[in-house]
Amino acid sequence: MDYAKESLKLHEKWKGKIEVVSTVEVDNEESLSLAYTPGVAQPCLEIQKDKDKSYELTRKHNLCAVITDGSAVLGLGNIGGISGMPVMEGKCVLFKSFGDVDAFPLCVKTNDVDEFVNTVYNISDSFGGINLEDISAPRCFEIERKLKEKCDIPVFHDDQHGTAVIVLSGMLNALKIVKKDKENMRIVINGIGAAGSSVCRLLLSAGFKNIILCDKFGIINENDSNIPFDYMKELAKLTNREHLSGNLQDALVGADAFLGFSKPNLVTKEMVRSMNKDAVIFACANPTPEIFPEEAKEGGAKIISTGRSDYPNQINNVLAFPGIFRGAFDVRASEINEEMKVAAAYAIANLISDDELNENNIIVKPFDKRVAKAVAKAVADAARKTGVARI
Amino acid sequence: MDYAKESLKLHEKWKGKIEVVSTVEVDNEESLSLAYTPGVAQPCLEIQKDKDKSYELTRKHNLCAVITDGSAVLGLGNIGGISGMPVMEGKCVLFKSFGDVDAFPLCVKTNDVDEFVNTVYNISDSFGGINLEDISAPRCFEIERKLKEKCDIPVFHDDQHGTAVIVLSGMLNALKIVKKDKENMRIVINGIGAAGSSVCRLLLSAGFKNIILCDKFGIINENDSNIPFDYMKELAKLTNREHLSGNLQDALVGADAFLGFSKPNLVTKEMVRSMNKDAVIFACANPTPEIFPEEAKEGGAKIISTGRSDYPNQINNVLAFPGIFRGAFDVRASEINEEMKVAAAYAIANLISDDELNENNIIVKPFDKRVAKAVAKAVADAARKTGVARI
Repeated sequence: MDYAKESLKLHEKWKGKIEVVSTVEVDNEESLSLAYTPGVAQPCLEIQKDKDKSYELTRKHNLCAVITDGSAVLGLGNIGGISGMPVMEGKCVLFKSFGDVDAFPLCVKTNDVDEFVNTVYNISDSFGGINLEDISAPRCFEIERKLKEKCDIPVFHDDQHGTAVIVLSGMLNALKIVKKDKENMRIVINGIGAAGSSVCRLLLSAGFKNIILCDKFGIINENDSNIPFDYMKELAKLTNREHLSGNLQDALVGADAFLGFSKPNLVTKEMVRSMNKDAVIFACANPTPEIFPEEAKEGGAKIISTGRSDYPNQINNVLAFPGIFRGAFDVRASEINEEMKVAAAYAIANLISDDELNENNIIVKPFDKRVAKAVAKAVADAARKTGVARI
Repeated sequence: MDYAKESLKLHEKWKGKIEVVSTVEVDNEESLSLAYTPGVAQPCLEIQKDKDKSYELTRKHNLCAVITDGSAVLGLGNIGGISGMPVMEGKCVLFKSFGDVDAFPLCVKTNDVDEFVNTVYNISDSFGGINLEDISAPRCFEIERKLKEKCDIPVFHDDQHGTAVIVLSGMLNALKIVKKDKENMRIVINGIGAAGSSVCRLLLSAGFKNIILCDKFGIINENDSNIPFDYMKELAKLTNREHLSGNLQDALVGADAFLGFSKPNLVTKEMVRSMNKDAVIFACANPTPEIFPEEAKEGGAKIISTGRSDYPNQINNVLAFPGIFRGAFDVRASEINEEMKVAAAYAIANLISDDELNENNIIVKPFDKRVAKAVAKAVADAARKTGVARI
């Protein structure tokens, strides 16, 4: 099927993939007086007395804003917020379908970090959570950090953390097959944008110790004075403890895993061949991966994962974000922290029993009905354990 | 019924009066690829080429933001945006129920005019129109003016213009009964806040010529150097052409109509008695009017209207805003101008035939099913005539 053509035709027919509906009927004087004036004054006064009552008296408890500035929409670059709205609406559909979260799409008309932050902060009381979407790196890191500081509701940049959760879940299952351990496994991450850097941090949070980061200028080494961004300098201090230098090809020699969030066709089967036995390859460039599964196999890789639905082990964020927000909302979490993300990854990984586990089945399918519930429960439990649950 | 108590109970049960739902189903790989990636890239690119395609490919065409800063919620004062959300949600319910407009409630966390304006402008691409709500005067005038200048979608402060449309519609029918004409009728408007000043402007737009404005400091006269606000100075130049001075009591002597948007019990039956024969009284302070209908009748008033549902001729904004936005959206109007508001008022007035017209029936009931459609049609026609329709 020509997805582009067919999707355009359907979007013209749909005229929007979301709708705002009423949960109450107002069809006579009495119902009007209760849902609106004069009765509605009372719930307003209750919220004025105790702001948290807004979770009980309005839709806040289940409302997630899906917000972009349109600076990194899919692989299309900075196409502007309004042009990204079909993606935002699609995301909202997934939030509702998979997590029963009411998600509302918003585009912000500025690429300025502080103006974006102030705009989103100013409307944040309207929501129970904020999902940032398709914002370019490194701006996305600063935006997320500042919003997390200012807001008392979860702020989550899915392009970073959703991907990280799925990759971690896949790695946890991959380890069981290749029988290596987290502490000693050498992992090369290529492409240190939104996804790559969050994957790195989450793997560290989950106990992985030996990570080498690469970007287009080669291996990141804390002794290198040419690291272009502050967030990369921070990551450099946490990774590559042997202070290796060189390019991606050098990094892969003797590595146990390659996790790519970069560009098509950067990895050859010869490079895979230079890796350790039972190499694990997550080639997440989409739709054309860093190396196609057939080739990686020829190079001797044991487990291969991509972003594509036509190969096994698809990395698909829809496995994570609906359940993560569902769980956060269920306990009115004030944030989505590392522990909650790690818990989500374990929940996804554990849906595959040891009997079912094999190199073509380390990540469950996106339409597995169990996923969102399992993730929500794990996330809610972790929120409680870490003291960020408010109910 | 104790509306306050009952409404609170219901709000606790409802947990929000709106819901965001999907209009499409995503339950397999193919539907995911069409509603989301990779297919969704194509609609994004179409919008990038032509921003107006967002009206065809996303929900923008039917989406209205209902936005407050919580500075003048009902009669409760500046209770803050989040406390006003039960009202905003209620308004969204009415938009959907009466006008089939998807309305989404937002509260903004600032009382600063320019910050409010920038925040709303920054997210305005997400919507087809903006309904401002419960913002205190005189800030509301500046906010609306600035947003109208910046945005290419309708911006409408309902507390001003919705009320004005209904009052004008009532006055048009009242004239038929008292057999007076617009040009010569002397109208006293008391309370020059959001509603009063917009009523004044709309009456002038509709051809009324002799308006006297009063506020707590008395009759507004352009020669008075003590007029406190610029917007009042502007109105002073358009009204009171005889340069009367004095207080409300003085203004009412020999007046044909009193329109109050002020405080309970300001008008006595003696004051009504001092007015011209067949006086028209719109006492819109709510829930306690400037004068109760029984008393106004005793003073000799011919036609009386209030904001209350338990008396005839209720001024209820729900007669106006759903149809106004419906009509504006139907022709993708770039703004809601005076002509569109006047057309809405005539459409509401004309729903009462000459046979049905009497002093207790000058304004149709809020639940009259014909209203929104008639208003929408009139507004759409007026938008076309004034060149602001874009389809």
